[in-house]
Amino acid sequence: MNDVSEPSSLAQPSDHLDPLFLRACRGEAVETTPIWIMRQAGRYLPEYRRVRKDVDFLTLCHTPDLATEVTLQPIRRFGLDASILFSDIMVPVEAMGVEVAFNPGPVIQNPVRSEEAIKALGRPDPTNTMGFVLQTVKNLRRELPPSVALIGFAGAPFTMAAYMVEGGASKDFAALKSLMFQDSIAFHALMEKLSLVVGDYLLAQIEAGAQAVQLFDTWAGLLSPTDYKEFVFPHVQSLIKRVKSPGVPFILYGNGTGGLLELMDQTGADVIGLDWRLEIEQALPRLSEGRVVQGNLDPSVLFAPPSIIQDQAARILQQIKPGQGHIFNLGHGISRHTPVEAVETLVTFVHDEGRRLRSSKAAEA
Amino acid sequence: MNDVSEPSSLAQPSDHLDPLFLRACRGEAVETTPIWIMRQAGRYLPEYRRVRKDVDFLTLCHTPDLATEVTLQPIRRFGLDASILFSDIMVPVEAMGVEVAFNPGPVIQNPVRSEEAIKALGRPDPTNTMGFVLQTVKNLRRELPPSVALIGFAGAPFTMAAYMVEGGASKDFAALKSLMFQDSIAFHALMEKLSLVVGDYLLAQIEAGAQAVQLFDTWAGLLSPTDYKEFVFPHVQSLIKRVKSPGVPFILYGNGTGGLLELMDQTGADVIGLDWRLEIEQALPRLSEGRVVQGNLDPSVLFAPPSIIQDQAARILQQIKPGQGHIFNLGHGISRHTPVEAVETLVTFVHDEGRRLRSSKAAEA
Repeated sequence: MNDVSEPSSLAQPSDHLDPLFLRACRGEAVETTPIWIMRQAGRYLPEYRRVRKDVDFLTLCHTPDLATEVTLQPIRRFGLDASILFSDIMVPVEAMGVEVAFNPGPVIQNPVRSEEAIKALGRPDPTNTMGFVLQTVKNLRRELPPSVALIGFAGAPFTMAAYMVEGGASKDFAALKSLMFQDSIAFHALMEKLSLVVGDYLLAQIEAGAQAVQLFDTWAGLLSPTDYKEFVFPHVQSLIKRVKSPGVPFILYGNGTGGLLELMDQTGADVIGLDWRLEIEQALPRLSEGRVVQGNLDPSVLFAPPSIIQDQAARILQQIKPGQGHIFNLGHGISRHTPVEAVETLVTFVHDEGRRLRSSKAAEA
Repeated sequence: MNDVSEPSSLAQPSDHLDPLFLRACRGEAVETTPIWIMRQAGRYLPEYRRVRKDVDFLTLCHTPDLATEVTLQPIRRFGLDASILFSDIMVPVEAMGVEVAFNPGPVIQNPVRSEEAIKALGRPDPTNTMGFVLQTVKNLRRELPPSVALIGFAGAPFTMAAYMVEGGASKDFAALKSLMFQDSIAFHALMEKLSLVVGDYLLAQIEAGAQAVQLFDTWAGLLSPTDYKEFVFPHVQSLIKRVKSPGVPFILYGNGTGGLLELMDQTGADVIGLDWRLEIEQALPRLSEGRVVQGNLDPSVLFAPPSIIQDQAARILQQIKPGQGHIFNLGHGISRHTPVEAVETLVTFVHDEGRRLRSSKAAEA
């Protein structure tokens, strides 16, 4: 497909079956490997850049028609098995009364660093304060082909706390960790509040039609396993317990969390999202029997020629034993510098090779 | 000790024994746990900041008397068991003919991205081009008490390549990985050249008096195990084979390398340096029997009150079984925001608790 061509119209619903993505999340035997891509609606797409020419990032997040449009763009282009709501993890932070700017990462002029500041944070009603997100979810359920599952999402409490306390991304998050180590009571109070807010928010997305939810813990990898266990784990565990709904898989994604796998496995999440810093075959023995995994191609592999993209994807698929649930994804969000053709190569290959590996294994059996 | 007091003079040599640090690197039974701290000569020390008021970072690196002075500063203050040469990992890059600035991280105006640019890189003679470093090593061997071992160091080929190709630190190192995936022959040629240069440089440091060497692979954690194995491992392995000298322990440190432990273990390094993102007890079963480890306190723990610093250090020490070689260190360089008192607390505690654990284990036996 040419970069400047008009995107084709949405494929017609091919069937009314349970989407492949959801069946894979539940660990069921499937005909091939489903694939979606973190940040699949984004700047690497020319049609996304055209929308962004006229509106800033926050307006895009806040306007359901526009957010719906950009969410659908990669679905029109590629044969993806899931669609993820276009939004930003800082939406609930704004709803809590904290002013957030983007440059391009989140910037908070008045970081939340004291017991008083934490106490002053609200617990917003999602319908009143984040209705634009819920409207986008409703739009998408109407617009998406039934074979494409809709994923809702939120930032994990620790990742949101990281931005709120630090004021933005940072090399070592000294302010965040100072609060954590110097005033653990205040830190836990912040995490507890964020867990409630994120829980309310994810439940509202499910109510509006999200068929799965993913919690992004982008910064959890800043912590030693001991500190994750003390400062993060209990909050994620109670959040997941509260949000888990029948038939709605819960995906927990972490970045740089190779040391935290055993703990993430115990949170109650159905699917563990892995970055590319360890092989799936290294991760599986450290997870519960039958735990479904998602991942884990290095996003930079999409800069490579097609044969290398295919080799690297094949290597990942070969690490999945028969009966092991797997959703293909990148190990982190797609880069804005990615050629569109590389995504086409990847999606086609994963579906074809996933199908071939399954049929050759079936033939052996 | 007060932040503004004058540093005390160097302790008199207490003995002429083999330094504790070197014995621990060799996996020998020792009386307590040795400790040193990555970036221990640095901006958290008021006496370092006084030196830096008058000279810029590069001048400091290039002037043996000044580099010697700042290397000795933490040795005067704390009861550290090893001293690491004050220098910068980019020194050999400059010697190869690449212009490097600091802002504060390394910045290269003309990144090395083509086969021609890689071919044009020199293989400098360390004595002619980096004599100031070798002079600093000689000074330090004269000045240091014999109980304090002197560590030489270099940046690992991949970490230096990362800066050279990218032009500086980056979020996703897109240029570096593009070269790696699109022109693996050129990438390997760069790694091979860097391995030779780094090897020459470390051998010259050993010749000048370094008693151990550490290779810093700060960016190795950018790679999947598969890519590390293909693009980095063979170069590090041949570098270590060439540099290893009788009685001079080789330490390989990586950051975010929890997925690479099995490979790092096979490089031939004597000691594996660990960051804090996994517990030592998670790492040990993945390393060869008897492999000595170094690490791994989160540098941010030094922002905490003394009781928490002690608790966290105790947790690490308790993970070391009798007979397991261990050098205490942070999991990454010390932060400039660290209070000096926190370092005093840590060093004293590690020595006392290391001694206590050993004697209580001996009493049990």
